[in-house]
Parts: sequence; structure tokens; C-alpha cells
Amino acid sequence: MPTYTPPLKDLEFVLHEVLQVHESATPGYNELDRDFTGAILEEAGKIARDVLTPLNTVGDTEGCTLENGVVHTPTGFKEAFDIVRDGGWTGLGADPEFGGQGMPYVLGASVTEMLVSANLSFNMYQGLTNGAYEAIHTHGSDELKATFLPKMVTCEWTGTMNLTEPHCGTDLGLMRSKAEPSGDGTYKITGQKIFISAGEHDMADNIIHLVLAKIPGGPDGVKGISLFIVPKFIVNEDGSLGNRNGVVCGNLEKKMGIHGNSTCVMNYDEAEGYLVGEEHKGLRAMFTMMNGARLGVGLQGLAQASVAYQNALGYTRERLQGRDVTGIQNPDGPADPLIVHPDVRRSLMEQKSFVEGGRAFILWGATLLDAGDLADDADAEGLLSLMTPVIKGFLTDKGFDMTVQAQQLYGGHGYIEETGASQFVRDARIAMIYEGANGVQALDLVGRKLASDGGKHVLAFFDLTKTFIKENEGETSLKADFLDPLKAAAKDMQAAAMYFMSEAPKNPNAALAGSSDFMHLFGHVALGLMWARMAKAAQDALTAGASDVAFYETKLATGRYYMARSLPETALRLARITSGAEPVMGLAAEAF
Amino acid sequence: MPTYTPPLKDLEFVLHEVLQVHESATPGYNELDRDFTGAILEEAGKIARDVLTPLNTVGDTEGCTLENGVVHTPTGFKEAFDIVRDGGWTGLGADPEFGGQGMPYVLGASVTEMLVSANLSFNMYQGLTNGAYEAIHTHGSDELKATFLPKMVTCEWTGTMNLTEPHCGTDLGLMRSKAEPSGDGTYKITGQKIFISAGEHDMADNIIHLVLAKIPGGPDGVKGISLFIVPKFIVNEDGSLGNRNGVVCGNLEKKMGIHGNSTCVMNYDEAEGYLVGEEHKGLRAMFTMMNGARLGVGLQGLAQASVAYQNALGYTRERLQGRDVTGIQNPDGPADPLIVHPDVRRSLMEQKSFVEGGRAFILWGATLLDAGDLADDADAEGLLSLMTPVIKGFLTDKGFDMTVQAQQLYGGHGYIEETGASQFVRDARIAMIYEGANGVQALDLVGRKLASDGGKHVLAFFDLTKTFIKENEGETSLKADFLDPLKAAAKDMQAAAMYFMSEAPKNPNAALAGSSDFMHLFGHVALGLMWARMAKAAQDALTAGASDVAFYETKLATGRYYMARSLPETALRLARITSGAEPVMGLAAEAF
Repeated sequence: MPTYTPPLKDLEFVLHEVLQVHESATPGYNELDRDFTGAILEEAGKIARDVLTPLNTVGDTEGCTLENGVVHTPTGFKEAFDIVRDGGWTGLGADPEFGGQGMPYVLGASVTEMLVSANLSFNMYQGLTNGAYEAIHTHGSDELKATFLPKMVTCEWTGTMNLTEPHCGTDLGLMRSKAEPSGDGTYKITGQKIFISAGEHDMADNIIHLVLAKIPGGPDGVKGISLFIVPKFIVNEDGSLGNRNGVVCGNLEKKMGIHGNSTCVMNYDEAEGYLVGEEHKGLRAMFTMMNGARLGVGLQGLAQASVAYQNALGYTRERLQGRDVTGIQNPDGPADPLIVHPDVRRSLMEQKSFVEGGRAFILWGATLLDAGDLADDADAEGLLSLMTPVIKGFLTDKGFDMTVQAQQLYGGHGYIEETGASQFVRDARIAMIYEGANGVQALDLVGRKLASDGGKHVLAFFDLTKTFIKENEGETSLKADFLDPLKAAAKDMQAAAMYFMSEAPKNPNAALAGSSDFMHLFGHVALGLMWARMAKAAQDALTAGASDVAFYETKLATGRYYMARSLPETALRLARITSGAEPVMGLAAEAF
Repeated sequence: MPTYTPPLKDLEFVLHEVLQVHESATPGYNELDRDFTGAILEEAGKIARDVLTPLNTVGDTEGCTLENGVVHTPTGFKEAFDIVRDGGWTGLGADPEFGGQGMPYVLGASVTEMLVSANLSFNMYQGLTNGAYEAIHTHGSDELKATFLPKMVTCEWTGTMNLTEPHCGTDLGLMRSKAEPSGDGTYKITGQKIFISAGEHDMADNIIHLVLAKIPGGPDGVKGISLFIVPKFIVNEDGSLGNRNGVVCGNLEKKMGIHGNSTCVMNYDEAEGYLVGEEHKGLRAMFTMMNGARLGVGLQGLAQASVAYQNALGYTRERLQGRDVTGIQNPDGPADPLIVHPDVRRSLMEQKSFVEGGRAFILWGATLLDAGDLADDADAEGLLSLMTPVIKGFLTDKGFDMTVQAQQLYGGHGYIEETGASQFVRDARIAMIYEGANGVQALDLVGRKLASDGGKHVLAFFDLTKTFIKENEGETSLKADFLDPLKAAAKDMQAAAMYFMSEAPKNPNAALAGSSDFMHLFGHVALGLMWARMAKAAQDALTAGASDVAFYETKLATGRYYMARSLPETALRLARITSGAEPVMGLAAEAF
């Protein structure tokens, strides 16, 4: 049975020593001192470790079941949700006007990482509610907000997002669900939505569906899509629950993983719905929600890698097999622990350096989100918008890879469900797919974000990388191990961007053929920058005479691994990118 | 429901135009003309497509069940096994003296690829029998051979391999299973073995377990291990089945995939066993079997990638989503098929070029195995021995990656079990683990094989690569696209080998830290060589005026993708390798 140790010290290191949140001018950040964040993270960590972790295997094994239209969640989920609700964790980042605690996103992301490491399936019930809350909060009328948000903040009512239809995934223009005006300001929603996470379950009094549908007579394609609230139970004027609405769960999907979350086919049959925002402007409203959601999914990739790594590490320390080639390490035992073997160590370092670098990347992104939201910092918002597909795509691709590497360390025991290593792989796999498959993230990055606002945001990224290198080049302890590799990697990224700029106007495929490679190239440079910043923080702490020397030395050694062995991938990505469209598109579609 | 199209033309291209098996001097190869291989492959392909493919989902969904010591295989497996047996497919490569057909391994591997693509779990019942047959055939006494082999050739009796114990995986020296001499030449075998594939099932009259155990009083560690035959039912003098032996299946493991194969905990309680080969020389006997078995597992990685690719390709042709950025391709439809999108195309090319390159690599390896076995060609044997960990490790690592890429092309539909994409991923995953986890393959490659016989075999590999390049450098059509990239990649491999040679004597960890990287580097160079040879064959066919121009043009375009976009990974692997031991081992085990 897997265990989980909340990475409190690592989270605090990033928050306080790398990002220095407490010194930030972003409104609300002045509250984020070490005492405050320490208390919050410790409490959240306990829930993750003690309440949610033991339910992760249960969720995987039991799954959800559909009986007469009712979805039963796995044993213990409801009780755990009550604990999470009672602790006020569901409204951590929500608007105090509706009962939330108004905490910055960077703190919420830190908490969420732990909850997701402990139990991804479970956390999705709350995560989707937060997303739906966000869309209503930003685009809904005051009346809708007053009616729905307070109960969603507490998760007494949970939320969903309904986009996909059987024939319509990424290409939302193909949508068929209809919304007929009823004449009284409400709409009748009819259609079928699929892959609706938490679409139906037994853990909340009401479920608030956010549904994209087309109002007849509107424009074709995505321009004719509107966003609606469709509650499972109609809410009466006094806030009590009234009739069952015309929406039912038609089926539960059998999935590779996240068995503890109910993935529903939702059938809408003239269900009563309320317009959120303006008619035909539904996509814009949905996109608001998506940026946060994509960050959240990137976080899932990281969180699953983190817990998978922890458990694999434990296994390599306990499992005795073979002897250290340089000399026996465990003379009293029949063999040495797996961790002595160089290829095992390589795998552990790869996982550890990714997890810690990725954590810093996510939390940096969270500070940008806060700066945009709370301080109206358009530059921060623009940079985050550029990096969102990287956070989502790179961290989930790599996060999945890391769960596979973690599983590998168990040998045959990793393939057996008993150890839980397989579940991390199977659960992490979804993060590469939902909220826009990673190929779509790459397309968004290269086809849209890279050149947006005249390329301003990518230039800003290059600038801050250059500035960091320049400001610290005097530190000989950092130069060879951190700054030089970062400089080389950033140069590869610039060369790739230049290639796109010169080739794309002639042939868009020349850029798009390298889009996934660029997403990974960018991801590596971003993690390289994070490691350089973490190394600087660690070096500063050591210089200042910090007592926990081992902690900072470990950070430096972990960062050196990333810079020496992971970051050089940028050159490969650049080579692939500059090979252009021909190798990729040279074979006609019908010739495959 | 997934489908499967046997890759007959691709197999024949490799056999006849690339490897030119019919012209080989290896005994038995003179029979392998196009007519003969064509007939065999077509028949095997039909069984794969029509009999085994439909059972793949059944096997995954139903799995195996244990009831009162009896393991029930999934619906239809037994009937399908009868078809395979009746067709004589189980004895294709076996010695005619025991009822086999004595066909070269290269033909058997071609057949097996298709059977494994269709249904990995199913094929394992036969594959393990072949492995056990091999060990008995090579090391058993005439009496044992006469008693057991004829029924194993026909798979009336199936076989197993019993190595692993709960505390003892790769490190066989830790083995506890005991074999006490009974005084009559037989032994009493006692102990517990785990992860025993096909350990118990209802598809054969008898199960012949090959079991490693220690005879009390023998040397410690691996030098005290002996190999025994332990039949499920004792075989009477007249060949009829007698008493049930003291071996039972104690449990079935719940696994990530290959649900259709029974993975058993086997409990031996004074079971009657017969020594195979000499006392304490069991490991050597087991290793004989392992080389073939590792080739077979490499083939599994490739085979799963192949079928996953085929199905993903079909999906990308049918699924309409979005529009080609260079112009609408399907004006009468609501959207263009997925295959128009560059990142989709990139993924398909990556899969296709791996599968076709990997197939050539495996079949080349098979010709070396035949040359060693049938023509006593020690050089061929040595080269194959060097490449065996690469075939196993590289093809299964990459094979798994490709199934993940295939699954990704389905978007959300790939995560749902219904499409079968998830099963290919889950099934392919085991190939990276069993028959020596890939980290162990890398260790075998760098720690043992690379320097064996004074490095003779790796020099032979370099030589044949150089010779091929030299002989064809005049062909301008090949030079820039194939020969130059191959030369650069081979140079990276040489540099890596040089690094190991100079550093390993000072610090073995400097080599072992780069062992997985070297395995991948080698794999890419090998596939680069295969693609160069395939390109040459395609070019020759075009020059000779072959009628199927499209087939050869497609080969060339696919190869160009591999050379331009996959092969450059060698430089990254070299960079990682030459970063040495420090980044990997710099963090002490207790500091993680």
C-alpha cells in the first residue's frame, strides 16, 4: 500500500526562498509569511497523508458504480469529502463574499499538489467545482452568483464542465447540443455530453453542470456557442432544492485509471438552464476557466510523479538485490539495497530533479496568475498565458514518464496492482489527455501564444533568463554547473523560435511539425531556470550559514543532475525542430 | 474493438530484400524463398487476425480466475489454442526428431510477431513452452527429452520458467527453493515461486515447470543453483499421466495488463523433480533459454507498438476534428480527419518508422541466432549476444512509448477501455520488466557484453556499419538522408564506448551511470543502420524498375523521418553518458 509524505519543506523552500512570496507586492501576499503558510500546509498535508492516501487504492479497486441513475462513489469517499469540507479546504481561494477564504492561488496550488498526490480521483470532485465556480464568478450575473456560489464554495454542491460530445472533442465548432429559449429567460438544454468527470455521484446535495450548447439561429461554429448552468436539482427561490432537472447520467465509462472519479455520459433532455455571460460568448467564458484548469492539470502530472517517486524511493531502500559494484554496502544483509546501483540512482535522480524543478515552475506560474488576477499585471498574465500550455503539456508528459520510471524500479512487483505503482501510471496518464490533449497544447503554444502580442511574452521570458544569468555570473559556484547550461539551453530555444519566425510564414507546417518538440524545449529551459534559481537560493542560504546544510547541499546536487543530464535535451529538440516539415509531412496521408 | 492487419508485405520486404535470407549460406535458409515464406506468413497472419485478435479484448476484460486450485482462462482461449496446435504452429522451430518442423528462427520470429500483435497474453502460453522446450532440448538427458519434448512441441503440454521468489528477483543468488535428492535419482522440490506466467491453466493436459532450486550442501549463491523439471502430473513409463505432483497455484496476481495470461504464485511441496543438465549448473542452462527469450520479449515490444500504431492510424483517418492549417482537405465533411494535423502526423511517423526499423532489427538478430545455431558461426553468436540486451531493452522501452503515443492520438477515447488503446499500453508495459528489467539489460550490455572477447563484437558492429556506409557512399540518393546521419550516430556511439573504456577502470560507476543511455544510443544506431539498409533496398528496387513504386517511396520517406528526427537522439545520449558518474552518484543514498 503506497504512503505519502507531504513535501512541506520543499514547498516552503520554493515559496519563501525561491519565489519569496512574502516580499512580493501582489495584494494578499503580505499574509504569506512562513508561520502562516507553514500552518496551512501542515494541516493540508495531514489530510492528504492520513485521510486521502489510504483511499487511493480503494478508489482504484472499487471504482464508481451506476445503479438506477445513481452513481455510488468508493467506500470512504463521502466521509473524506466531509472532512475536507468541514476543514474549509474547498473554499481556500474563493471570494470571501461567497464564503471563501480569499487566499492567493499560489497557496492553493501548494495545498492542491498534496491533495492530488494523495488521491487524484478524489480531488477531481473538488477541482471541477473550483473550475465551475471560477466561470460563474467571472461571467455569471449577480443573481446566479448569489444562488450557486456559496454552496459551491463549500462543495455542498459540486460542479462539472460539459464540453465534449461523441463526435466533438477539441473541435468545439462541431457541437450539437441545443439551448432553446423558454421565453422566461431560461433555456431548455438538449444533447449528449461525454467524458463528464464527477457528472453524477452521491457526495453532494446538488450538482451544478456548466454546459456548452448552441442557441438555434446563432452563428455557425464556435461563435455560436453559449454557456449555461444546468443544476441537477432546480434551486427554489428560498435556496432550497426543488425538482429534479432533465439531466441524467446515462453511463459510466470504463477507464484506464482514475477509477475513483465518475466519468459520465450525461444526457440532457430539455433541462432547465441559465445563461452565463452573453449569448454566443460561451467559449470565451469557458476559456477563462481553462487557463486555471490547465495549470491544475499540469500540477496533477507533477503531483503524481511526486508520490510515485516517493514510493519508488522507499522500495529501492528496502529491497535487497545485488551488490554495489564498488564494494559491499550492507555487509550484514544478504544483498545491498537497490539504491546502490547506478542505473537505479539515475532513475531516482531523474524523478527527483523533475519533481522539484516542476514544483518550482508550477508555483512560479501560480504567482504570475496571482499577479494578473490580484494586481492586474498584464505582463505577468501574458507570460503565464504563454507558459500555460508548457505547464500543462510538459509537466504531464514528463510527469507520466516519471511514474513509469518509478514503476520500473519495482521490477515485477511494479506490474502487480498490489504495490500501487501501476495506479500512479494509469492515473497520471489522463493528465496528458484532458483539458486539451498535449498535442493541442503544443499547437496552442506554437500556433498562437508564441507570436501573440508581437512575441512580447517570449521575449520577456528570454529577458528574465538572461537577466538572471547576468546578475549571477559572478558566482563561480553557480556558473559552470547552472548558468552555462542554462545559457546554452536558452540559446537553443531562441534558435527554435527564430526558425519558426522565419519558416512559418512560408509554410505553417514547418512550425507545427516541431510544436511538441518546442513545448518540451521550453519546458526544459523553464525547469533549467527554476533549478538555477533554486541553486542560487540554496547557495545563498549556505553562505548565510543556514543550519540545515544537508538540505541545501541536496538541492544543489539534485539541480546539478538536471542541468547535466536532463537539460541537454534542448539540443535534440532543436535538431528535430529545424529538420522542418519535410520529414514529418513528406509522406502523403494516403500513403501510410 | 481493435483490428489487426498482418504486415505481410513489410515482413517479406525485410526477409527477402533487406536480409536476403534465401541467398544466405545458413543451413535451412535455402528453403526460405518467397513462395514458401509467403504461404507460411499468410496462414499465420490469418490466425492472428481472425482467431487471436478478437480474443484480445476478451482476455483483458475477463482475465483468468482461480477456483479450487484450477485456473480458468478467458472464454475462447482454449478453442483458439486448439486451432493453433492443430495448425502445427507450436512446433514451427522445433527439432523434427521430437515432432517439430525445424524451421529457422527468422521465420518463427516473423510468425510470432503477428501472433503477439494479435494477442500477447495468449501467445505467452506457447512462448513459455518454447522456452522450456529449448532448455530441455539443449541440456536435458535423452530420457527427459523423449518423455517431455514431443508433447511440448505440440503444446499438448505447456511449459513454464520458475526463477523468481518473493525476496529474490534479479539476484538469483538469494534463492531459497530446495531440491532434496530422493535417492532414486529424482529430487523433492520445495519452495515458493512467484510471477510464474502460465503457471496453471486449463488449456493443456500437463504443465511442465522448469524450476531453479538449490541442492542442499551445494555452493552458496548462484553457483549452487540447479535446474529441474517438475511436471504438474507425473508421467508414467508408458507416457500416460499419473499422479498429481506436489505443485499448486496458490494465487493469481492482479496485474496492470496481460490479464489473459495467468500469473501464478506456485507452491512446491516436495514435488517430484528431475535434474536438467548437471547439478549446480542450472543457471547456465537457464541462460541458454534467456537469450532467445530476450529476443522474444524485444519482439513483443515491437509487436505491441505495431498493432497500436495500426489502430491509431485508422482512428486518425476516420475521426474528423479541426481543419488542415494549409487548406481544407475534406470540404464535404464537417471537419478534416485528424491525420492532416502536423503533430498527429509527427506521432504517426515516429511510430511507423520505429515499428519498421525495429522489425528489421529483430529479424536481423534472428538471422544471427540462426547463423550461430545452424552454422556454428561464433562471430554471429557474439554479435547477437552483444545486441540481445539492446533488442530487449531498447525495443521494449520504445515499444511501450509508441503504444502511449498511439493512445494519445485518440484523445479522451484512448483513455476509455472500449477502444483498446489502453490495453496495448498496459500489455506492452510488462515487456520492459520481465526477462530482466531493462535496467538489468543495460547493466548486462555495458558491464559485461561491451568488453567481452576484448570488445571484438562491438568493433564488428562498428565495422559493418562503416563498411555499409563506405560501400554505398557513391549513391547520392542515400548519402545526405541516410549515410551521413548514420555516420554521425555511429561516431557518437564510438565516443561513448571510448568514454567507458577510459573511465570505467578508474570508476565503474562512470560507465554504469550511462548504461541505460548507451542501450538507447546503441538501439538508435542499430535502427539507423537498418533504415539505411532498407533505404538501399528500396532504392535498388526503384532503380530496377519495381512496379510497386509507392511502396518503396513510402519506405524511403519513412526512413528519412527516422534519420532526421529520431536518430539525432544519439548526441543527447552521448552528452548524458559523458557527464559521467558525478551527477548520478553525487547525492549520497541517505540524502534522497
